[in-house]
Amino acid sequence: MIKLSLVGIGSGNPEHLTLQAIRVLEGADVILLPRKGEDKSELADLRRMIASDILKTQPDILEFDYPVRDASTPKYLDGVNTWHDALATIWGELIAKNVAKDGTVALMVWGDPSLYDSTLRIADRLLARGFEIAVDVVPGITSLQMLTAAHAIPLNTLGAPVQITTGRRLRDHGWPEGVDTIAVMLDGECSFTSLPPDGFHIWWGAYVGMPDQILLEGPLADMQAQIEETRAAARAQHGWIMDIYLIRRV
Amino acid sequence: MIKLSLVGIGSGNPEHLTLQAIRVLEGADVILLPRKGEDKSELADLRRMIASDILKTQPDILEFDYPVRDASTPKYLDGVNTWHDALATIWGELIAKNVAKDGTVALMVWGDPSLYDSTLRIADRLLARGFEIAVDVVPGITSLQMLTAAHAIPLNTLGAPVQITTGRRLRDHGWPEGVDTIAVMLDGECSFTSLPPDGFHIWWGAYVGMPDQILLEGPLADMQAQIEETRAAARAQHGWIMDIYLIRRV
Repeated sequence: MIKLSLVGIGSGNPEHLTLQAIRVLEGADVILLPRKGEDKSELADLRRMIASDILKTQPDILEFDYPVRDASTPKYLDGVNTWHDALATIWGELIAKNVAKDGTVALMVWGDPSLYDSTLRIADRLLARGFEIAVDVVPGITSLQMLTAAHAIPLNTLGAPVQITTGRRLRDHGWPEGVDTIAVMLDGECSFTSLPPDGFHIWWGAYVGMPDQILLEGPLADMQAQIEETRAAARAQHGWIMDIYLIRRV
Repeated sequence: MIKLSLVGIGSGNPEHLTLQAIRVLEGADVILLPRKGEDKSELADLRRMIASDILKTQPDILEFDYPVRDASTPKYLDGVNTWHDALATIWGELIAKNVAKDGTVALMVWGDPSLYDSTLRIADRLLARGFEIAVDVVPGITSLQMLTAAHAIPLNTLGAPVQITTGRRLRDHGWPEGVDTIAVMLDGECSFTSLPPDGFHIWWGAYVGMPDQILLEGPLADMQAQIEETRAAARAQHGWIMDIYLIRRV
């Protein structure tokens, strides 16, 4: 049976790699490497650098282009599902053509494959289509962990719960019930501006863990405009941005 | 100024170490190593093994005993705070006596220092007492990440939020509002038995990522008794247990 390893590589710094991630990548016959689309070229470059400079073996590197996601699909989830179907077809063809029946194929996953990532869902589609693969997951450091490490703060207050959520969800549903801390991912629209500004503290980061890391923190009321401006400027400068934040009621 | 590095070492397998964690530990002059108390001896042994077998340098290893936490303190949080104060005193004395003014001292933290861990709070106490230290955090793989990796499941469903919470909180407050997935940590009492059993799926793990890892998953109604029995037997056999679980509404 083919082994498909989804390997978390951390959040932009090759030093985030675990010894396990390196061992599994070195043991792969083939590594699938997404070239563009959602993955910005700097992220593809990091994966290439890991393959060429960190691994002591030389798996075959198969680069592939991401299908374009159809943003015109009326429902967000329908668009995502169609896109995952298309990606599963690409993976399936590459694996069928290039991996032996008892071979191993790996993908380098930004962050950790468990957290707001598509690869496990795409692997499930291959299984549903009858591919004989065994799926193996290697965790990696997430951008959320890089955010809390960079600010040197705990995710939770003592014994208290934390909600991990999305920008869309924060905009549509407001502050969630029953928690005093939220971590917000996938937010392209500074959704913290939808909160009443008083009584919250925000810790924000962009490109966390990477050389261009930007960190800002303070009372939400004081920081909203500054974060919006900083984000817009950084995005204009880099051509892309990846940011994340934690907000606590104070 | 003294640099104090809190280094996440992952969840029981030295292969969880990141390259960054190894570099920072190798650069330390002194490593503080807790010997017992909350840390079971197998966990202290893992830290000793990392120091002796993985690091290519030889920092001074200073072992210290954990103070005993007074479980008779009426309020849980009061007991924890007193215990953190006592730990800060121990760290402070060890650092003052053994670390040069521009030296570096590291602690190996189980999992990641951001998630249900005390070390950042203890470091804050040293700062509040006037210690001139710069605190540096290196993230590590958490047991929650090992759980989802071992079961090969995503933490979140597509675009949906997740609550990370404690067993105590689940018992006292029931299923939280607004989420269909919860991850439960620090649960000594199988608090999932407090939920109405129908309509949930549970993914449970003990000693996740370690050689004695046990995994169970299935509909909560079918699994409650089996997990309770498995947990009790494993705890009796090992003398300690560390378990974690994820529950999703289905």
